[in-house]
Amino acid sequence: MIRRFRFGNPIETDSIPEKPPVTEEALPYFDVTEDGTELRLPLGASRVYGLGEQVRGINKRGWTYTSNNSDQPHHTETQHSLYASHNFLLADGLDTEEGRLPVRFGVYFDYPGAVTYDIGYTDTDQMRISFPDANYDAYIIDGEGDLDIISQFRALIGRSYIPPKWAFGFGQCRWSYMSEDEVRGVADGYQKNGIPLDMIYLDIDYMKDYKDFTVNEETFPDFASFVQEMKKRHIHLVPIIDAGVRIEKGYKTYEEGVADNYFCKDEDGKDFVAAVWPGKVHFPDFLNSGARRWFGDSYRFLLDQGIEGFWNDMNEPAIFYSEKNLKRFFEKIESYKGKNLDIQSFFEMTGLAAGLANNEEDYRSFYHDMDGIRVRHDRVHNLFGYNMTRAAGEAFERNVPEKRILMFSRSSFIGSHRYGGIWMGDNTSWWSHMKLELAMLANLNMTGYLYTGADIGGFGGDTTPDLVLRWLALGIFTPLMRNHSAMGTRYQEAYRFGHLDDYRNILRLRYALIPYIYSEYMKAATENAMYAKPLAFMYPDDARAAEIEDELIIGNEILIAPVMEQNKTGRFVYLPEDMRLFRFRSADDFDTEDLAKGDHYVKCAVNEVLIFVRKGHMVPLAKPADSVDQIDWNDLTWIGYPDGKETVYELYNDDGETKDYDPAGHITRIVKRGSDL
Amino acid sequence: MIRRFRFGNPIETDSIPEKPPVTEEALPYFDVTEDGTELRLPLGASRVYGLGEQVRGINKRGWTYTSNNSDQPHHTETQHSLYASHNFLLADGLDTEEGRLPVRFGVYFDYPGAVTYDIGYTDTDQMRISFPDANYDAYIIDGEGDLDIISQFRALIGRSYIPPKWAFGFGQCRWSYMSEDEVRGVADGYQKNGIPLDMIYLDIDYMKDYKDFTVNEETFPDFASFVQEMKKRHIHLVPIIDAGVRIEKGYKTYEEGVADNYFCKDEDGKDFVAAVWPGKVHFPDFLNSGARRWFGDSYRFLLDQGIEGFWNDMNEPAIFYSEKNLKRFFEKIESYKGKNLDIQSFFEMTGLAAGLANNEEDYRSFYHDMDGIRVRHDRVHNLFGYNMTRAAGEAFERNVPEKRILMFSRSSFIGSHRYGGIWMGDNTSWWSHMKLELAMLANLNMTGYLYTGADIGGFGGDTTPDLVLRWLALGIFTPLMRNHSAMGTRYQEAYRFGHLDDYRNILRLRYALIPYIYSEYMKAATENAMYAKPLAFMYPDDARAAEIEDELIIGNEILIAPVMEQNKTGRFVYLPEDMRLFRFRSADDFDTEDLAKGDHYVKCAVNEVLIFVRKGHMVPLAKPADSVDQIDWNDLTWIGYPDGKETVYELYNDDGETKDYDPAGHITRIVKRGSDL
Repeated sequence: MIRRFRFGNPIETDSIPEKPPVTEEALPYFDVTEDGTELRLPLGASRVYGLGEQVRGINKRGWTYTSNNSDQPHHTETQHSLYASHNFLLADGLDTEEGRLPVRFGVYFDYPGAVTYDIGYTDTDQMRISFPDANYDAYIIDGEGDLDIISQFRALIGRSYIPPKWAFGFGQCRWSYMSEDEVRGVADGYQKNGIPLDMIYLDIDYMKDYKDFTVNEETFPDFASFVQEMKKRHIHLVPIIDAGVRIEKGYKTYEEGVADNYFCKDEDGKDFVAAVWPGKVHFPDFLNSGARRWFGDSYRFLLDQGIEGFWNDMNEPAIFYSEKNLKRFFEKIESYKGKNLDIQSFFEMTGLAAGLANNEEDYRSFYHDMDGIRVRHDRVHNLFGYNMTRAAGEAFERNVPEKRILMFSRSSFIGSHRYGGIWMGDNTSWWSHMKLELAMLANLNMTGYLYTGADIGGFGGDTTPDLVLRWLALGIFTPLMRNHSAMGTRYQEAYRFGHLDDYRNILRLRYALIPYIYSEYMKAATENAMYAKPLAFMYPDDARAAEIEDELIIGNEILIAPVMEQNKTGRFVYLPEDMRLFRFRSADDFDTEDLAKGDHYVKCAVNEVLIFVRKGHMVPLAKPADSVDQIDWNDLTWIGYPDGKETVYELYNDDGETKDYDPAGHITRIVKRGSDL
Repeated sequence: MIRRFRFGNPIETDSIPEKPPVTEEALPYFDVTEDGTELRLPLGASRVYGLGEQVRGINKRGWTYTSNNSDQPHHTETQHSLYASHNFLLADGLDTEEGRLPVRFGVYFDYPGAVTYDIGYTDTDQMRISFPDANYDAYIIDGEGDLDIISQFRALIGRSYIPPKWAFGFGQCRWSYMSEDEVRGVADGYQKNGIPLDMIYLDIDYMKDYKDFTVNEETFPDFASFVQEMKKRHIHLVPIIDAGVRIEKGYKTYEEGVADNYFCKDEDGKDFVAAVWPGKVHFPDFLNSGARRWFGDSYRFLLDQGIEGFWNDMNEPAIFYSEKNLKRFFEKIESYKGKNLDIQSFFEMTGLAAGLANNEEDYRSFYHDMDGIRVRHDRVHNLFGYNMTRAAGEAFERNVPEKRILMFSRSSFIGSHRYGGIWMGDNTSWWSHMKLELAMLANLNMTGYLYTGADIGGFGGDTTPDLVLRWLALGIFTPLMRNHSAMGTRYQEAYRFGHLDDYRNILRLRYALIPYIYSEYMKAATENAMYAKPLAFMYPDDARAAEIEDELIIGNEILIAPVMEQNKTGRFVYLPEDMRLFRFRSADDFDTEDLAKGDHYVKCAVNEVLIFVRKGHMVPLAKPADSVDQIDWNDLTWIGYPDGKETVYELYNDDGETKDYDPAGHITRIVKRGSDL
């Protein structure tokens, strides 16, 4: 049951396609302050889940989180905001009618500004949710446990994005591969070493002067041919699109945006100027339907050259500096000069420099035209990246309606999950960020982001060979599987570290698992279910399972428990039911161990992958292939843990390109008897 | 067996009090490059331990570490240097004479500049150690396993520092308690709530304008009386001393240093100017014996007012900026002004601002007078903090020879362990930094730093109530036990969070354990043994024990396994032998469980502490007391795990103040039969 409660006069976010009517009842569970800007909930023993892309564990208790989309590459425990705002939570409520027994409920706050969730931080025993102003819709979702509540919520927000099948392959990225030749070298590095690959991502340097919808013709002299050359090698090129449009006379996108008044405005009604990678830019006003249509149609420049996938970046939006703020900085610096700088002034000065980027003041100094309504940016800040992705998604629907286009974004807000996936932002080559990915996977799945994954090996900082290998062993279970690293850091393609067999075997296992991963993804997407689930949801009566934050249920058949610490050759695992462990050295070299529900220490060398299959379940394995389109779905083998009865699996398959997702036409029910497994 | 190998013409560090003669043999185990600046060692399956204060785990494989003392508060996995340089390692060597079987050996590089240890980072299978120049002594230590090698090494470098007994109590710190009244408030906060406390630390604001050896007379109007007032309350005040001496006409320390030529010089022979907390400062030339004597004697200003303990800070030395570098920064900024700043220039500019502090160029621009030899600072950089601590330690020996004075430092180099302890630097309120403390404890004990501990609750960033509680539960086993937090962060004294019983019970358990902690510390210090040991050392034939990095053996009788993750009520533990678990809710409320060698999941609520006692061992518990001097050593109870035979414990006790450490006079052999336990 979903009830909608209204406070004040909310700004429309379009995150809910079809809204239930507003109820006149009082908001249950929470104490609401008189002005409506703060809600309080006693926490009791409640575990709190949700918030999608955020720091810390699956259970969000014990910290303060703010929905405030931020270009924040330091994903440490003390951050409060990352690139996304996903205002959905699961908690216990005291149902007064039922005698104050805790009942599980979900809540979604449809509000486009900064919301703060103090979940037992200030007061261990209380949650406090606060809004800058009391204009929001709150949706309370009651149901039969977490999975049911999530399923209702997901139905409310609409079906999650479905990418083309090839996007379930492995992709390699770097900021940046600078030329055709460098890209060819990466393709060679994989293909000559027999390591499968489906995508090479193009970061900002494929463009001319970082201008969206241009290609640098010196380094990519015949882009359309190059796209075809790569496609013949079964590799899709996936270029980046940035939010800011370079101010440059004669540059088509700039000229069009100015002419049609499609850019965000400053206080004086002039096109707002910020600086990002291209230097000075204007921001397309993605909150305006006309601007959205115009910008979305611009992707045709690349679609027409054979491109079938994109990633949208810098769309929080990131701002390196604004003209106004930089001027103020220089003035302040001037006032220090020659003075006997005291230490406080020194820190003020270095703080000013550090504070130029993504300055909150800048976000208060430009405006949107929401189809006739002028709104200051900060009030709708979290909608910006969402509507950039929506601009692209709606345009693809218009321009190539028959075809799935790969699309994922850095910034997001619930609603954008219908138009694309997200990656988990600019992480670092830290073991702790591998753990963070696992936790985020669970919380992102709750909020509708199924096509997601972290930058494997870590984006910032230098990686290590073992971190890449272990992270790949987690990454083979994430729908979006991409290795990505930043300029100036160690190269981390899978063929860079010697011990080639280890990297090859793990990536070939990914491809063997694609029938399973794709089936489970498609079923989760079409049924508003979760692809990656915390154990707590599957085993709600198991107190031990409730605390597990380093294992996940992937799809419906398997549990994963990756090794996420350096210099370890095994780990502890809690199994919430009897399972069969498959310890893979490669897709066709594994041993098995039947393990009873309970605690186990399992060995897992740095080149091994553990898959735990539930009793009575089975999983298809394809023969290893070099790309997704070369997988033979008619030649599957099965691994499983028969329980004496028939073992059934519903295999979903389709052409991977068109948009007919009707399960009836695509699901095959496979039945095996024990002796067949 | 210890052999000393000489390369080139080393600078004297005084880290080894009595050196064995140089051997003419070739350096074993390593391949040495012709110029002697790089050593290579095949790693095989070797676990590598050592390096003292460094990032990452107990086993150092898989990263690059540089000995380069750094004011680096971001202790993330991608750092290479922290505040200390401890050039001691344990690894496997191939002993050619014995048929190339791996043998365990230790190596100490006596070299005062930057040494880089690439331990399987570039090449998974190889260690590469490199020096800027080939002037160093290498000590190779062969022995019967890790503990024996360490014991030999520790004998070589001399007995570890021993603090007064009261320094094993709990201390509270904050940057800063600004006045007598604020300090009284903290004392009240503890004592009125029945929470024991022995020390309150005074951070930089107790001084007048951050001048060493001054007191702000407005906020601490009668310091000597205040010291006595606190002592009557059983609380020692422990003031900070910074490395930089403020440039101020008429300020005694400044005038003396200038007059006697005791400050470091710039290229032109003038006193080198840097900026730190006090503004412009000179650095005492701690590498000069005269300057050391002078600066050490200056502590008398505070000793004379009743102070009995100090902490030395900012002695890497930290440099916020140098005059020369700041000038260059302003010039550069000037050149940007008015220009249409391109993005590269923008990042250059913000990079310049961020790079002003602790700039390597500054470390190459001043000089020491090493008793007649002029040496550029960067060549002996890692000796600076060490010799500040030594200055104090040698002065205490001269001025108060009969008395132990508490002394610990931020920066260190092997050698300073004889004069004081260290704390683990400016950490952050991260759960991962609790894990880092546990790993560092092990590696610091190897290198002679027994009196050590991390800032409990985390120094930077806002802490959480559960993090403080869990961290205290680890901290009760560290000799230096201090809660410390930075300006601008959440207050985190143990009485700040409600649930007072939980904090009180854990801290009272610390005091109940002090007879054990003190005994084990004194035995470890006097026998060149480790107080905190990785399981790998105690159980060298146990492959599982070898990988455990979240448990430690404390002293000789117990194993600890703290919960170091949020929202958990238990954890996995591997026990390398049969043990009895004592699960403490308070010093006199616990339950027990006998656990066999092997894997266990054990419950541990947020207010509980786990102590695992080895079979056949026992541990004394004192009655809880409000301060160390109120502990009744004649009224001990015992917890243990009898094995049917007599259980023996060697209890060390002394007056805690004088320097007679002869075990014969202080050890009582306690024998219990099973029925007494």
